[in-house]
Amino acid sequence: MAKISALSGFPEHLPEQRLVEQHVIDVFRQVAELHGFSGIETRAVEPMSQLLRKGEIDKEVYVLRRLHAEEDDGSDADPDRQLGLHFDLTVPLARYVLENAGRLAFPFRRFQIQKVWRGERPQEGRYREFYQADLDIIGQDSLPSHQEAEVVVVMAEILSRLPLPPFTIRANNRKLSEGFFRSIGLEDFEGVLRTIDKLPKIGDEATARLLVEDAGASEEQARTCLAFASIRTHDDSFAQQVRDLGGEGELLEEGIAELAAVLEQVEAAVPGVMMADLSIARGLDYYTAGVFETFLEGSEALGSICSGGRYDRLAADNRHTYPGVGLSIGLSRLVSRMLSVDLARPSRAVPTCVLVVVESEETRRRSEAVARDLRSRGIPTEVSPTSAKLGKQIRHADRRGIPFVWFPHEDEADAVRDIRSGEQVEARADSWQPPHEDLHVQVLAGPGGEG
Amino acid sequence: MAKISALSGFPEHLPEQRLVEQHVIDVFRQVAELHGFSGIETRAVEPMSQLLRKGEIDKEVYVLRRLHAEEDDGSDADPDRQLGLHFDLTVPLARYVLENAGRLAFPFRRFQIQKVWRGERPQEGRYREFYQADLDIIGQDSLPSHQEAEVVVVMAEILSRLPLPPFTIRANNRKLSEGFFRSIGLEDFEGVLRTIDKLPKIGDEATARLLVEDAGASEEQARTCLAFASIRTHDDSFAQQVRDLGGEGELLEEGIAELAAVLEQVEAAVPGVMMADLSIARGLDYYTAGVFETFLEGSEALGSICSGGRYDRLAADNRHTYPGVGLSIGLSRLVSRMLSVDLARPSRAVPTCVLVVVESEETRRRSEAVARDLRSRGIPTEVSPTSAKLGKQIRHADRRGIPFVWFPHEDEADAVRDIRSGEQVEARADSWQPPHEDLHVQVLAGPGGEG
Repeated sequence: MAKISALSGFPEHLPEQRLVEQHVIDVFRQVAELHGFSGIETRAVEPMSQLLRKGEIDKEVYVLRRLHAEEDDGSDADPDRQLGLHFDLTVPLARYVLENAGRLAFPFRRFQIQKVWRGERPQEGRYREFYQADLDIIGQDSLPSHQEAEVVVVMAEILSRLPLPPFTIRANNRKLSEGFFRSIGLEDFEGVLRTIDKLPKIGDEATARLLVEDAGASEEQARTCLAFASIRTHDDSFAQQVRDLGGEGELLEEGIAELAAVLEQVEAAVPGVMMADLSIARGLDYYTAGVFETFLEGSEALGSICSGGRYDRLAADNRHTYPGVGLSIGLSRLVSRMLSVDLARPSRAVPTCVLVVVESEETRRRSEAVARDLRSRGIPTEVSPTSAKLGKQIRHADRRGIPFVWFPHEDEADAVRDIRSGEQVEARADSWQPPHEDLHVQVLAGPGGEG
Repeated sequence: MAKISALSGFPEHLPEQRLVEQHVIDVFRQVAELHGFSGIETRAVEPMSQLLRKGEIDKEVYVLRRLHAEEDDGSDADPDRQLGLHFDLTVPLARYVLENAGRLAFPFRRFQIQKVWRGERPQEGRYREFYQADLDIIGQDSLPSHQEAEVVVVMAEILSRLPLPPFTIRANNRKLSEGFFRSIGLEDFEGVLRTIDKLPKIGDEATARLLVEDAGASEEQARTCLAFASIRTHDDSFAQQVRDLGGEGELLEEGIAELAAVLEQVEAAVPGVMMADLSIARGLDYYTAGVFETFLEGSEALGSICSGGRYDRLAADNRHTYPGVGLSIGLSRLVSRMLSVDLARPSRAVPTCVLVVVESEETRRRSEAVARDLRSRGIPTEVSPTSAKLGKQIRHADRRGIPFVWFPHEDEADAVRDIRSGEQVEARADSWQPPHEDLHVQVLAGPGGEG
């Protein structure tokens, strides 16, 4: 018998934990569809030539090989034929859009919830296999800026429907940052951004020093950058603060208008969850306008649970470019947090609402008929696996977390007992209804979510 | 730009096709939960030492390697550390049950819908990446035989709720077969079964010859075996036919009783879908009682779409054995068939029910407010991405397959138009309801399912 053990970095859930994960996935899908987003799935593999386009994380890719592939068939050496597991859902989306451009209607609104794989060293909150849940709008050649707000609104609605502590979506805009840095005389825009991105980790003083040493800023410019990065407002008052610091010009005003519009639209849909935070930089070079990060109150150490922004060139073919805006939830990491600090709990451990007892194997058919009646009205039901003593059958229900036990009777009315309260009533299988909250498993806020 | 192309054996769906696949997955989950089965997912990878326990298909495994793994860290050579992608959901289930035995309640009722990977040569209906949907009940040390019928009932209900042509679940029982072959004097039970398994492919004559040549049967025994394998009944009359052919003994009668019980219980739950077919053998050695295969009328060439049976030793640890019974749907293959012969169609291509037009960018906020009102009552809604001419916005809805277009008005009542019929009515965003069948995408039988 081979050794059985958990694999570090490859999390698995017990059935009752999976109910929480499934709930998060269901809410994501439900809200995304409510906003007209189409769900797609892409294959788990891409040619290595696709995966290596983002050079920075090539170390993390899992490469595939068929166990008995001929050593000399060359596929291992040819990056167009060698396959690897996708490490995110953005590279596959870019490929999917190019491959199906003629068959998609643009702007293409898609959500995608799938596992991704990274060969990273596993550690707290870092997995080798995990779910990502992405939401993007992809345009063909153009994408109106108001669609940035759309994806943020959907994500805000998703998060607000989950049993989570209060969260804040922090927003900035690359045009605003670039316009500001240029208008105070800093031309190395990307250098400044990369430095500002380190601010939460290294603090004001070290950031100022790096701005001077690496990004060509004077002491005064560095101080102005820090003042800029400290701007945090819930309304559009950030705009005047930026102008007061010397920000001006067309690009800056465009960024201000876009950020103000996102704030306004999200506030209208999900009040109180978004703020402008001009320190948000996001490392990746490809963002071109709005950038977003999301933090859970009390779980800031977890980092951003939902991030993204606008990128003007997701992909391009001979005829078109495909600009997009998207946000991504690190779903496994979020669910793992929900479970580990008891933010959420299923109302019971199994889908079953009713266990029908079996008096003796001779009357099993009668119990099965009761179960069919209940199920035909949508009540999740199972029949006792054995005709053991009643007490034992009730304990079986209790151990599985099934709230109701049904007693079929030959000569008198059937009875159903709520084994949590012990209350027992006469009932008919063709009409009894459990309380609404007991019909299906509900995922509720756990004690970890209070205070 | 790397080459963009479909990968043979790795199917992907367009958004409207994915709606059909998602529907099949939803129905599977809904019915499984109605019967009290818990959904689980297992990691995509297993140690090669686990995967190679079923020696026969080791050729098909995809082995993983981290792109920049040290060549000499030994993990490639150690089958306990080397990882491969799972090729079914049974090997992972066995490992999951052993790993979590102390935390599961037995009998453990689980369903699992996940992608699996096989490095097979791709061909019509054979994929390298595909969904399997499994349903099993696992006991600890014992599993009552009536639970065989339970999993078949659930699968029959799932299939009967899908837009499919009529299907037949063909059932046999290994005890019945073994008891019969032994009672006519054939001791090489497994040899006989393996030969009978070839019957549909090679025909009566060749099967008879093989029974004589390979399985030690006399000409008469071979003829009796073929007569046995030709028994097909919808009720328990198979039993008398078996006895008339000379079948007798305790094992045989046990098999007869079990098969009759399955037939009766499935008939009670989903009438007309099951029959006893004593030619059903199923190659795999590990089945020990009920065995099942399912065929779609008009798609027999597809092979069995849902198969399985009882196995008395899924797994074992130092203290317990874990007998089980399970059935598995080759979900991707089934969905691919549904799409290719137009058995099923989504009622529209996108989740969106209503497109709210935007008269001008200045009044976009008003359109967004309408959309919020509609969504707050569960109506999937999107706002036009542009304020182009009305005709263009309506064409956008039409191209995406959105049935309703909403016209917000400043000074008069709003209007909503069904763009399929052209009918337009006054409406309020806080009270208008689409017809029930238009609220969400429905997956309906397509013309390929008629006749």
